[in-house]
Amino acid sequence: MTIRVLTFGEMMMRLKTQGFERFSQARSFEADFGGAEANVAVALARFGCESVFLTVLPNNPLGDKARGELRSRGVHTEHIIVRDGRLGLYFMEAGVNQRAGQVVYDRENSVFSTLMPGALSWQASMKSVDWFHLSGITPAVGQNSADLSLEGMQAAKNAGATVSIDLNYRSKLWNYGRSPQAILPDFVRRTDVLIAGRDDCQHMLDITGDGDPDSDAYFSTLTQRVMEQYPNIQQVAVTIRQTLAAQNYVVRACLRDASGFRFSKSYAINHAVDRVGTGDAFAAGLIFGLGTQMTKREALEFAVAANCLKHSVSGDFSDASIVEIQQLMKGSVAAGRVVR
Amino acid sequence: MTIRVLTFGEMMMRLKTQGFERFSQARSFEADFGGAEANVAVALARFGCESVFLTVLPNNPLGDKARGELRSRGVHTEHIIVRDGRLGLYFMEAGVNQRAGQVVYDRENSVFSTLMPGALSWQASMKSVDWFHLSGITPAVGQNSADLSLEGMQAAKNAGATVSIDLNYRSKLWNYGRSPQAILPDFVRRTDVLIAGRDDCQHMLDITGDGDPDSDAYFSTLTQRVMEQYPNIQQVAVTIRQTLAAQNYVVRACLRDASGFRFSKSYAINHAVDRVGTGDAFAAGLIFGLGTQMTKREALEFAVAANCLKHSVSGDFSDASIVEIQQLMKGSVAAGRVVR
Amino acid sequence: MTIRVLTFGEMMMRLKTQGFERFSQARSFEADFGGAEANVAVALARFGCESVFLTVLPNNPLGDKARGELRSRGVHTEHIIVRDGRLGLYFMEAGVNQRAGQVVYDRENSVFSTLMPGALSWQASMKSVDWFHLSGITPAVGQNSADLSLEGMQAAKNAGATVSIDLNYRSKLWNYGRSPQAILPDFVRRTDVLIAGRDDCQHMLDITGDGDPDSDAYFSTLTQRVMEQYPNIQQVAVTIRQTLAAQNYVVRACLRDASGFRFSKSYAINHAVDRVGTGDAFAAGLIFGLGTQMTKREALEFAVAANCLKHSVSGDFSDASIVEIQQLMKGSVAAGRVVR
Amino acid sequence: MTIRVLTFGEMMMRLKTQGFERFSQARSFEADFGGAEANVAVALARFGCESVFLTVLPNNPLGDKARGELRSRGVHTEHIIVRDGRLGLYFMEAGVNQRAGQVVYDRENSVFSTLMPGALSWQASMKSVDWFHLSGITPAVGQNSADLSLEGMQAAKNAGATVSIDLNYRSKLWNYGRSPQAILPDFVRRTDVLIAGRDDCQHMLDITGDGDPDSDAYFSTLTQRVMEQYPNIQQVAVTIRQTLAAQNYVVRACLRDASGFRFSKSYAINHAVDRVGTGDAFAAGLIFGLGTQMTKREALEFAVAANCLKHSVSGDFSDASIVEIQQLMKGSVAAGRVVR
Amino acid sequence: MTIRVLTFGEMMMRLKTQGFERFSQARSFEADFGGAEANVAVALARFGCESVFLTVLPNNPLGDKARGELRSRGVHTEHIIVRDGRLGLYFMEAGVNQRAGQVVYDRENSVFSTLMPGALSWQASMKSVDWFHLSGITPAVGQNSADLSLEGMQAAKNAGATVSIDLNYRSKLWNYGRSPQAILPDFVRRTDVLIAGRDDCQHMLDITGDGDPDSDAYFSTLTQRVMEQYPNIQQVAVTIRQTLAAQNYVVRACLRDASGFRFSKSYAINHAVDRVGTGDAFAAGLIFGLGTQMTKREALEFAVAANCLKHSVSGDFSDASIVEIQQLMKGSVAAGRVVR
Amino acid sequence: MTIRVLTFGEMMMRLKTQGFERFSQARSFEADFGGAEANVAVALARFGCESVFLTVLPNNPLGDKARGELRSRGVHTEHIIVRDGRLGLYFMEAGVNQRAGQVVYDRENSVFSTLMPGALSWQASMKSVDWFHLSGITPAVGQNSADLSLEGMQAAKNAGATVSIDLNYRSKLWNYGRSPQAILPDFVRRTDVLIAGRDDCQHMLDITGDGDPDSDAYFSTLTQRVMEQYPNIQQVAVTIRQTLAAQNYVVRACLRDASGFRFSKSYAINHAVDRVGTGDAFAAGLIFGLGTQMTKREALEFAVAANCLKHSVSGDFSDASIVEIQQLMKGSVAAGRVVR
Repeated sequence: MTIRVLTFGEMMMRLKTQGFERFSQARSFEADFGGAEANVAVALARFGCESVFLTVLPNNPLGDKARGELRSRGVHTEHIIVRDGRLGLYFMEAGVNQRAGQVVYDRENSVFSTLMPGALSWQASMKSVDWFHLSGITPAVGQNSADLSLEGMQAAKNAGATVSIDLNYRSKLWNYGRSPQAILPDFVRRTDVLIAGRDDCQHMLDITGDGDPDSDAYFSTLTQRVMEQYPNIQQVAVTIRQTLAAQNYVVRACLRDASGFRFSKSYAINHAVDRVGTGDAFAAGLIFGLGTQMTKREALEFAVAANCLKHSVSGDFSDASIVEIQQLMKGSVAAGRVVR
Repeated sequence: MTIRVLTFGEMMMRLKTQGFERFSQARSFEADFGGAEANVAVALARFGCESVFLTVLPNNPLGDKARGELRSRGVHTEHIIVRDGRLGLYFMEAGVNQRAGQVVYDRENSVFSTLMPGALSWQASMKSVDWFHLSGITPAVGQNSADLSLEGMQAAKNAGATVSIDLNYRSKLWNYGRSPQAILPDFVRRTDVLIAGRDDCQHMLDITGDGDPDSDAYFSTLTQRVMEQYPNIQQVAVTIRQTLAAQNYVVRACLRDASGFRFSKSYAINHAVDRVGTGDAFAAGLIFGLGTQMTKREALEFAVAANCLKHSVSGDFSDASIVEIQQLMKGSVAAGRVVR
Repeated sequence: MTIRVLTFGEMMMRLKTQGFERFSQARSFEADFGGAEANVAVALARFGCESVFLTVLPNNPLGDKARGELRSRGVHTEHIIVRDGRLGLYFMEAGVNQRAGQVVYDRENSVFSTLMPGALSWQASMKSVDWFHLSGITPAVGQNSADLSLEGMQAAKNAGATVSIDLNYRSKLWNYGRSPQAILPDFVRRTDVLIAGRDDCQHMLDITGDGDPDSDAYFSTLTQRVMEQYPNIQQVAVTIRQTLAAQNYVVRACLRDASGFRFSKSYAINHAVDRVGTGDAFAAGLIFGLGTQMTKREALEFAVAANCLKHSVSGDFSDASIVEIQQLMKGSVAAGRVVR
Repeated sequence: MTIRVLTFGEMMMRLKTQGFERFSQARSFEADFGGAEANVAVALARFGCESVFLTVLPNNPLGDKARGELRSRGVHTEHIIVRDGRLGLYFMEAGVNQRAGQVVYDRENSVFSTLMPGALSWQASMKSVDWFHLSGITPAVGQNSADLSLEGMQAAKNAGATVSIDLNYRSKLWNYGRSPQAILPDFVRRTDVLIAGRDDCQHMLDITGDGDPDSDAYFSTLTQRVMEQYPNIQQVAVTIRQTLAAQNYVVRACLRDASGFRFSKSYAINHAVDRVGTGDAFAAGLIFGLGTQMTKREALEFAVAANCLKHSVSGDFSDASIVEIQQLMKGSVAAGRVVR
Repeated sequence: MTIRVLTFGEMMMRLKTQGFERFSQARSFEADFGGAEANVAVALARFGCESVFLTVLPNNPLGDKARGELRSRGVHTEHIIVRDGRLGLYFMEAGVNQRAGQVVYDRENSVFSTLMPGALSWQASMKSVDWFHLSGITPAVGQNSADLSLEGMQAAKNAGATVSIDLNYRSKLWNYGRSPQAILPDFVRRTDVLIAGRDDCQHMLDITGDGDPDSDAYFSTLTQRVMEQYPNIQQVAVTIRQTLAAQNYVVRACLRDASGFRFSKSYAINHAVDRVGTGDAFAAGLIFGLGTQMTKREALEFAVAANCLKHSVSGDFSDASIVEIQQLMKGSVAAGRVVR
Repeated sequence: MTIRVLTFGEMMMRLKTQGFERFSQARSFEADFGGAEANVAVALARFGCESVFLTVLPNNPLGDKARGELRSRGVHTEHIIVRDGRLGLYFMEAGVNQRAGQVVYDRENSVFSTLMPGALSWQASMKSVDWFHLSGITPAVGQNSADLSLEGMQAAKNAGATVSIDLNYRSKLWNYGRSPQAILPDFVRRTDVLIAGRDDCQHMLDITGDGDPDSDAYFSTLTQRVMEQYPNIQQVAVTIRQTLAAQNYVVRACLRDASGFRFSKSYAINHAVDRVGTGDAFAAGLIFGLGTQMTKREALEFAVAANCLKHSVSGDFSDASIVEIQQLMKGSVAAGRVVR
């Protein structure tokens, strides 16, 4: 069984220093492409979905390259439009041990951020689409992007598609004069499936849980309140990350819907290769799980295992197959072994 | 004191993606050479043995390169023969965290696998040889290779050499119509020193131990049964690996002979650089230890320390000196320190 | 507030194999520059100090390159002199797991080691200097270097500068016929701030503590004796490192002065990128803390946090900013996270 | 105006040593994908054609990677089938100066070479196709491949598509017992547009020209005879290469049809980056030119300029846009300049 | 003899694909820093001048890195100011053979382009300065930058410094609504030494020569007219480049002043490593020659030899010493030889 | 037919910047091993000779690596002795266009240069040797090395081996107080086959030819005088190199013996990959040709073709096979082509 999913958002080039080099040591940058919604599209294509990505790319070789990267992963790019302008960039150095990773954003005035509402053919893009996904990063880019996102949500409703949003709070964005708390509730009221981190809920929806913020009870009450305040939401999933050091994490998640609340298994990650895009792998796993009628528990476990595996792949894009994810879910003895 | 050892088997080129890249990300492959018996030969040459490797290589630049790699490590290559054909290959991506490593074998129709019995001058190769070593991989390649291996074992007996075999079960091979359990017992009956993993014994000899398969008791009974069924065996050594994640292991081993049964120390490995070839380092360490008249305990500890150190070196080949191994055995405070 | 610091010593080129390659596998070497006192100078410049480095460099492109590296980090290089000769080198392979790192020194007959006493204009270099720092490596190089170091200490006294020394015992040096215990006491008697490791005190000053050498009591008694024997010393700081494996350490330090004795926090480091230069980062942190009138505790914690962060940066040079160090001292939740 | 083109053939992974390294020096191989007909497909997609490639790929990560490379270049891959087996490989070292490049083929027993006639759905693949292109390499692979090629030609005729073939003589293939001269005439009799090198005509069709084989007259008489013997041929194009050294060439071509015979301009190439795939760039240029109704002269010049530009791009694939080719044809002053 | 030179302009990071890779093939970018006036400053520092560079850099790690690169080359950076904003970038792929290099500018909205007139302390920066140099790129960036440049020229006049300008026409800039011909004459009227290419004079000053634009006569009449129209100009130098292919050039130049007109020697360059920054090397050579009282002919030859040698160094910065340039001027037999 | 050849001299590690990087840009160095006589040994082993190399290497991992490199090329290393000390080094940047390559020697006080006469077992090393080869570099290293070389020549005479010397003048050596003209004649009087460049003869033997030093007549008279002054010489070969730019050369050679004088063919080299070791390839080619009874002309042409091909291989070592050399001698049309 497969589904057709449309995701919409900005795609950027990421320029990362080699290995653990600091910016002061860099002589070259690894170039990868990504963006929250593009990452979701790539992961879904890997699962065999008909995955469509919608964005605007610049009319230059960097834009062409971005499109080619999507295509090579099997994403449908026919609806992407092209304009004169610049590709959004971000520079990155990886953290290690107690040294935190650093990002230098250079995405202002990108061709995406300057796209005006009305410029996209939502109806054509939404044709036969079962699911529409976007993130809270897009409305953080600027008023135009926020308005375009709302256009998309409306078009999805018209097309009868399920709508999911991943809140994805980015403190370095949101500098065009609006606060997330003024913008996001409007989005969430149009959402069927909400994906969020604990702090996203606080910063973007002004909702917190009870007690120790790392406790199970906190997440239970948090999700309960989300569903009370936004009764349109069918499922709310919260990803939970414990950061021990720049390569060491413990990850899990929880999911609440009308039928109840459950936590996933936990995974300890000791040599994270790349932290970026792990939340998007979760979102893709959850969309795939819910969209293909897994049980809620299965969908949650599938999403967390996808999240876990993304930590082992460099770049923004996930590259885990359904088989690899299912083996991890089963706690296969092959985990970590060379199969030969 | 030194010994002359002959090992026989297939040598391949290994093409590994860079770092932790997945196949889908690869733009180049690191080229290393190896093979279970070649790896043993290299490790023994590093210990100062007269180490002779016997194989067939293709008559092309890749075959020449393979031979050069052996020579650079001090292995005697005069007995290697050359034929038209292709070098066996395998492609590899390293695992990390919960993501398992992957191997794509491309060794069918190799020049080695098509070598016919009778093509080698065993008597010449075996001259002055004290020890002959081979592995259970070679009979897995095909009937020709199995027959050639038996020829070698017989020649070794005639020459008065000690014979060791490392079972090395490879589930992806053994596809020429014979099962390991139909083939291997014949080999083991000609063996003086048997090296195996726990699962090798089960899959290739149909022998298991009692109780929890991770328990000490299991290994004690397992080795006992091996020696009961194959009274010709002088020593049986079993390597024991606990896989925590793709770079995290705990390794130890046990050795049984007529004088008793003992476990080695355990080593925890947290940043394995390369898992491939670690069993071969163990085999080389054991051959060296037993061949140079160390006590059984010393030989076992030497072999496990060699195994442990191989995890820190990329490629198939071990590169640990006797001094480095002995320092580790002594639990030297210098372990892990930069000496300056 | 800032201070002007002069450091004096040899600068070398370090040629390290790529990643975890052993010397036997190396096809190229990464070239970095460093040396205990140069490293301190670089770290202090990063903190905003007026940092002056004094040495002699060869009159060739490698010497020019060394100077350029200092300049790029903001170190003042006007007092460096240039002579015909060779640059000191050292070759290095990194350790990993149980395999220890290795250094092959090639610094004999360097242009620094052959510099004669009287060749430097100490008075000019010392102008406006608040603090003079050197290490116990320089007197290990040879009699000339030892004599030059004493010249410097005298000049610092004349200029009214605080004098610090980091003992830095190197067993592979000290081969010109004098023992450290015959030389160093003379140095320490001219020192205001002494920095040392536990074993340095034993090998260079013949001072030990009481009890288990890893115990708190040992370090307390050790530093007490140092101050008793060298009443000129205002502060003595001892760095304490527990080596679990080649990339795994726990680091802390202690500081004693007239007002008392205190241990710093401990930091566990699981993926050390580079062990070299961590002691120099500590020295720089301590000089900066004490020189800018932090409390003793603050200065100690600042120094240890600087030491901890250096483990995450390749090369000899530290690259931690004051802000990064202070965030770590505060145990910021951002530690290890990508900030975006 | 655009056309839909189907090409059919084997796709391989090419493993090339770095830069000008010889096999004996190689520590890694650059991995590119290509094959004569895949290269044509990629070049045509770059020109904006609907470009469809038909082949069989192995059911493993290397096959997936090959498909992704095509997709990233905009080639339609929906008709490609997947089977268990191995991907054909070739190893390569680049020549330079008087040292010739070397290829070690490792393509025997590939998944393509073992595909049986009847395994492909020609009718579906040929839907709406205007042009079908194949090369003389495919019938060199084996009888199965030759038979499959003929199936394709017949299907193309049935679908009313123009058929082109590029003879592409490969002396190292053709070892399955048939000679090219026994096979190719049958192909050429089904061909509308024939592309060949001078020596291809001799070795594969047994046709030569008159006089000095480098003379204009030779090519005129050669093409005349081709058209006499194969009156079905509408156009015959011959590429002409003068090799001065491994990076230095002069290239041109000629085209004959019923309306006459003409030579293209010559291009001198002094720093060829990659010689492989230049003939395929010519074929793609000619197909595009003739298919989009350029004049014969324009089509010829377009093809030669595409051929010329391919020498400046590494890998099998061409990456020249229509604009770049047209600028070169016009002898733009910008040729070779940085535009800024 | 030395001089103090101030140059003023924008510094950018250049991100170039590896080797001859096209953008479509890039997986990483080499990061270099440069800009016309920064390049002149670096070359002058290499000649031993007191070289001061004035610009504004962003308050982020990329800005810090840019400054460090200047410092490592011995340029004085104390007058550089720092602001929040982004560093200007440009992406580049190198051309080869008939394929032209390509630049994708991404410098709009840079921290430099948004700097307002009045923001710089010209008087302080101009202290003790003998020579002030700028280029025609800066007024192309925007009205602010044009106004800042004029401020600088006025300050230089006040300080008694010689003023030089390198016209440097960039067709891809000049898009803020003013034409170069409306802006530049005002600059040239304040200039003592004018450096230009043939086409710069046409596009920016509307001055051409007589006859074939490649002829000697053209350059003679061109420079004559420049001096007639701008009698304030003391010397006008024109660089002359013949482009044979992307790596093949012939370069020379001419210089006119009141005492006459002369052409330099020609240099044929067959393997240009980097074309960028060669004009800046010429400018630096000319400034150094004229500033240190070489004869006009010597200064011209020095400048052209510096230009020639820059073609052999990657990156924006020249790295030729006075000795290397003089050896080339003398046509030393050592040119091109390894000295050993 | 094959011969056993012994060569004797110093082996060094060469540390070369990447590509065309200058020292000022270097972040890493490529490590190769070589030395005039080692290079000859490697080339002879490639020709199938029994090639024995004699030297002293340091007792450290760099010495081990040097030995391994020889072994991998099939050179016999059993006679090499090992001592405490340092390996000689040289740093190198490649030239390009008009920029000359640069070498920074760092070979003083090497383990080789400090070896005392009498330390080698000449008689054992010379066993069964047909040919002994050394170069004029060794006596330039120091008096010890000169004395050792003479020991070797004497031992060769005693063993009945042919003795050849390649003069190899190095202006940067010869700084231990003796001039080459005081030393070399004694060597040449013990030589059977003399190999030299034009300038070597002048600087080391004080012999020049008549007329224009690039003329054929010059070389004819030069070689005539050499044979007149040293009647012991059987053959004298002079290599002739015209340097057009750092990558562009024309090479040829001439050979005189009792039977006459002849020039070889000329080869134009346009993209030299590595200039180092080309003279050694010539020497090896000549030794092989003369030693295996080729005609004088054949031997000369073989040597020059080997010299020519070495320009296309990086590192000190030649890697040309007999077949490749003979193809070039025949002017095969395949020269420069990819064979496939």
